[in-house]
Formats: sequence, structure tokens, C-alpha cells
Amino acid sequence: MGGSLPSVDAQQLRGGARARHERVEVVLDDFFRLAERRAALVGRRYVELWSVLERNTVGGKRFRPRMVFTAYDALGGTDDEAVAGVAASFELLHTALIVHDDVIDRDFSRRGIPNVSGSYRDTATTAGIPTPAAEHRGMSAAVIAGDLALAGASRLLLDVRCEGGVRARLLDILDEAIFVSAGGEMVDVELSLSPEVPTVAEILDMERAKTAVYSFEAPLQAGAVLAGAPDAVVDAVGEFGREVGVAYQVVDDLLGVFGLESDTGKTTLGDLREGKRTVIVAHAATTEEWFAIRPFIGKADLTEAEAEHVRARLEACGARAFAESLVEQHARRALAVLDGPAVGDALRDALTPVVATVLERVR
Amino acid sequence: MGGSLPSVDAQQLRGGARARHERVEVVLDDFFRLAERRAALVGRRYVELWSVLERNTVGGKRFRPRMVFTAYDALGGTDDEAVAGVAASFELLHTALIVHDDVIDRDFSRRGIPNVSGSYRDTATTAGIPTPAAEHRGMSAAVIAGDLALAGASRLLLDVRCEGGVRARLLDILDEAIFVSAGGEMVDVELSLSPEVPTVAEILDMERAKTAVYSFEAPLQAGAVLAGAPDAVVDAVGEFGREVGVAYQVVDDLLGVFGLESDTGKTTLGDLREGKRTVIVAHAATTEEWFAIRPFIGKADLTEAEAEHVRARLEACGARAFAESLVEQHARRALAVLDGPAVGDALRDALTPVVATVLERVR
Repeated sequence: MGGSLPSVDAQQLRGGARARHERVEVVLDDFFRLAERRAALVGRRYVELWSVLERNTVGGKRFRPRMVFTAYDALGGTDDEAVAGVAASFELLHTALIVHDDVIDRDFSRRGIPNVSGSYRDTATTAGIPTPAAEHRGMSAAVIAGDLALAGASRLLLDVRCEGGVRARLLDILDEAIFVSAGGEMVDVELSLSPEVPTVAEILDMERAKTAVYSFEAPLQAGAVLAGAPDAVVDAVGEFGREVGVAYQVVDDLLGVFGLESDTGKTTLGDLREGKRTVIVAHAATTEEWFAIRPFIGKADLTEAEAEHVRARLEACGARAFAESLVEQHARRALAVLDGPAVGDALRDALTPVVATVLERVR
Repeated sequence: MGGSLPSVDAQQLRGGARARHERVEVVLDDFFRLAERRAALVGRRYVELWSVLERNTVGGKRFRPRMVFTAYDALGGTDDEAVAGVAASFELLHTALIVHDDVIDRDFSRRGIPNVSGSYRDTATTAGIPTPAAEHRGMSAAVIAGDLALAGASRLLLDVRCEGGVRARLLDILDEAIFVSAGGEMVDVELSLSPEVPTVAEILDMERAKTAVYSFEAPLQAGAVLAGAPDAVVDAVGEFGREVGVAYQVVDDLLGVFGLESDTGKTTLGDLREGKRTVIVAHAATTEEWFAIRPFIGKADLTEAEAEHVRARLEACGARAFAESLVEQHARRALAVLDGPAVGDALRDALTPVVATVLERVR
């Protein structure tokens, strides 16, 4: 689900934020310890699955927890325990979605490290199991692990100590995030199989649904709801999250073609070689340059020289500038939301850096 | 997850049971109508997924709802609306587990009808997409659909109108059912890849975890909790469910080797050809006949004549009788639970036929 999200800068980690961060780890650690104790009653092979799932949860950048905290703190929330539970829930949702996304993308690693499928495939291969069976074992384990992370996200939210009405709204936000992300994933599956290049609007809708909602909109709203914010504020942070989340996804598309490896942790040939449907490709397909570009989109053995040629064409046809203008446009809209009447100074000051962080990646 | 569960006989449909049954359909229908309206906001391709998921939910035998009703009614429950919601939740859990089980088993149909994977594979094939990509599309859609059914099961339970403490206990029961079923599925994946034949105890533990808990134990307990039963009764129906559920699974193993196609809706060659790990095979592996049986277990092109030979050997070595004795033993234990002090006459009268129905399948 999208690429690497930005680390939130050091400034945001001052004050209580670092303690907050550590509290999320404690919630997740407690969750996994309990799961492993329960799993032992089912069998040692199940304990191993939990251990692999935990390894695929720890060490992330905790971007979604930070979104929860940012809204919660700026809106005056003070219950460290409750907000850590909400944040941990969104982190587990993230794990669930990427674990199943990797099954769907047939990926066996993430950022160069074996994911759930990869871990299970590799130990099977080492044990002498032939590759197809080993890969299927990996995918089977990942299907199950994703289910457990998804159920775990609900569980953690149910366990948050807060007023019943607040919890019901938090559960609604989680439910909507799962619902919309699953829809985005399904549309992505279909767009990638379609022989026609999707429109820019189709790509943006898909990217928003698949990643922006659960990564930005939902965790920001959850933080606001837990802080007891009025509806107008919850709506505003949701709208902010939607806009900045779309900007983030378009930045991701830009980095996937024009970025440096060190930024993304993957070769910038990847998106071109796999023929990934992005706003850049969608825009290029509406220009006369497309006939010269098309043969290289999805060319599995694309060379670096060919990639340079394609990048030059994508610039020449205006696709890069178009994508960059989309980023600016959505970033501006996000900032405009912060100028609305519902948003106070503290919230504006807390959310403005989120936009800056997203824009910095592409500049 | 296991094979065909028995229809509950007509006697149990008298009185309010038929109206109850229809109310579950109303809850599920409302759930899918709302989901389709929400899905339309994401995209028409997402509406299609919901429509396929619904087709894979309707038309089941509603075995788990009946377990909920059986306990609830016998314990004096009278809230038709609430019990229908709990029952629908367990039905969606069943859908989630079989949809993902089919991904793991690489099955594209269930009872001769295309499942989620099969539907998506088939429309892709018709559109000219090559088989591997079409199959992967099918499996991708099924991964997503299973996630939605799993989240839906939680959603339906959250929406049940009942006292907060009762709802929390219902959610715990659902959580435990998901947790244990996932563990059973994982152990099943591992046992089927292991070159060694598992022990009878390993098979029984796996079958209990994978299917008996969510099909018998959990829905019976949920019905009891919703009816306000004391802990001793909830424990008793859980223990009853565990025993009868294991008996049911062993019956399923017996039918998979010795049954007639009309009983199971599948060829009785299937389990032998795929080398399914069953208590029958596990017992046979401990006897001297095993050297004559082993070459045929997992033989993909096993003929009917060879199957007859294997069946005769499985009988000769005592594996069939052993499995039948296991069924009797667990059925007896289930009935013994009903003779315990916590179980009143109404509950005993309601649950005794469940055991009879399971035993009838194998006699």
C-alpha cells in the first residue's frame, strides 16, 4: 500500500511525543505476548506465525500512529493510554493491509527484507520443498497472518478505555478505513489487468481509496474523535487527510519514476518495469508522445538507458509537470482546509508540517 | 473448512425456528445492500466484488446460525432481532474462513459452483486473460473478499442491540473463534507439507481448531451468552460443542474416504488423491499395513480400483474402525456433558438431536 512514508521530523518528537511513541510499542508488545501465549495452546507452528507477524509489525516508521497523536495532542487530548491503543490499532491495520497487498502483488520481500510470505517460503526452500510449493506455503501463511492483524486491529480498538459513544465512532472510522482500502485494492487489481490505460481520475480515486484513507484521513479523524473534538473539526481533519494523502500518493508515483533509489529503498526502474498504473502514465497516455512511451511501460527487462529515454519523454510530454502540479494542488487544498473556521491555531500549527514533509520528498 | 454440515432436521424448524431463519437472511440482506451502496462510492468494480461475495454467502445451510438459535431458544432467549444479528455474524465468519481456505487450497469451486476465486478467474479467462493471470486475479479478489467478510462479522456483532457487557463477551467469543480457526488453518498448512504423517492427536487438535470451534463451540456459547445464561451453562455448551464438533470432523474424514458422492457433493477419491491428513491415515501409519497403503495416499491419478484396494486395506488395518470409535467416543462425551448439573431439560432436549444428526451421517 503505497511506498515508504516520511519520517516525521525531529521537532515533532519533542515534548511528549517520544514517550507516546514508546507507549505504542508497549501496547503492541503486550498484544503480541498475549497472542503468543494463546497460540501456544493451539500448537508451536502457530506460535511461529505470530512471531513472524510481529517481526513484520515492529520497526515500521509508525506513520499512522503519529497521525493519531498529531490530531489528538493538538486538540488537547491527555489520555496517554487510550491514544496509544488507538494508534496501535491503526498500525496493525497497516500491517494487515501490506501483508495481504504483498500476497496480491506476489511480493516476497518489503524494503529488501523477507515479508511473511518470504519468511515462510525461505524456510520451506531451505527444508528442500520445491519452489512452487514453498511459495504457496508463504502466501498461505501471509493470508492467515493478514487476517490475524486485521482482527487484531479491531481487538485493540475495542480494548481502548473510553466512553462507549466515542468507542463506537472509533470503530466506525476503522470499519470505513477497512472498507475503503479493500475497495481501493480491488480497483487496483482490476486496473492493472485492464489493457486500457486508466484515466487520471481513476488512478487518483484508486490511490485515495487504497492508501490515503487509512494512512491519513482515518487516523487523523480517530485522534480527533478520541480528543472529543466537535464534528466540524473531525470533518476538517478528515478532509485535510484526504488531500494530503492524495498529494502523498502522487509524490510516491513521481519518486517511483524520477526518484533516487536511496529515497524509496527500491530501484526506480521498478514502477516502469512492472507497468504500474500511475497518474504520470495516465497523463502521458493522453498525449502524442504516448506512442513512443508505451512500448517501454511494463517492459520487464527495461534497461537504465531505456528508462532514461522514457523519463525524458515523460518530461517532454508534460506528464511530470502535470503530476507535480497535482501534488501542489492537493497540498494547497490541504492547507486551505487548515484556514477554515473549524480549525484552531494549535491544530493548524500541528498539521502544517505534515504537508511540508510530503512536499519535501519531491523537491 | 471441513465439508458439508448437516441440515438440521425438520422438527427443529417448527415453531419459531423458520421465522428466525428468515430473519438472518434479512440481516444479511441489509448488510449486503448497505455494503453495495457504500461500494458504489469507491467504484463499480468494487460493487461487483460485493455481489460475488454475497453469492458466496447466500444459499448456505446456515448451520452456525442454527447453533446460535438452538442454545438461545433453549435457554429462554426472546430477542428475535438480537439473536438474528449474532447468527448472521457467525455466518459471515464462516464465509470469511471458507473464502480464504479456498485461496490456501487453490480451490476455484465449492460444491461444484465457482467460488469467489473461480468467478473472478472465469470472467478473466472469458475476457482472454491467460490462465495464470486469471487465476491470480481470482485469488486476489478472494483475499480481499475474505477480509471484508471477516470485518463484516465483527461489524454485525457490534451492531447487535444488547447490554454492553453481553456484547463484550460476544466479541470475545468471536475473537477467540477467529484466533483459533486461523491457528488450525496454519497447522493444517504445515501438516500437509510435512513429509511425516502426523499423529492422530495432531490431526484431532488441528481439526478442532480449524473448524469445530467456530462451527459448534463458539456459536453455541454466543447463543447462551446472549440468552443471559450463567457461566457454568456457557462452559457446558462450549464443551458440548467441542466434543460434537470433533465427532463431526472425524465423520467428515470417514465420508471423505468411505462415503458416497451424493453425501458429500464431492468424489470420495478426492481426499485420497490429495493425500489429505486425516485420523484414518494417521492411524493407518502406525500399523504394518502402512507400507501397502502409503503409495496410494496422495497419488494424483488414483483409479477407482486402486481406491477400493486402499479402502479394503484401511479397513483391514483397523483404521476405519478406529475412526468410527473416535466418533462414538466424542459423541458419548458430548452427551455426557448434557447430563451434567448445569444443563437443564430444555437445553438437553435441544442439543441431543445435534449429536444424532452428526452420527446419522456416518451410519
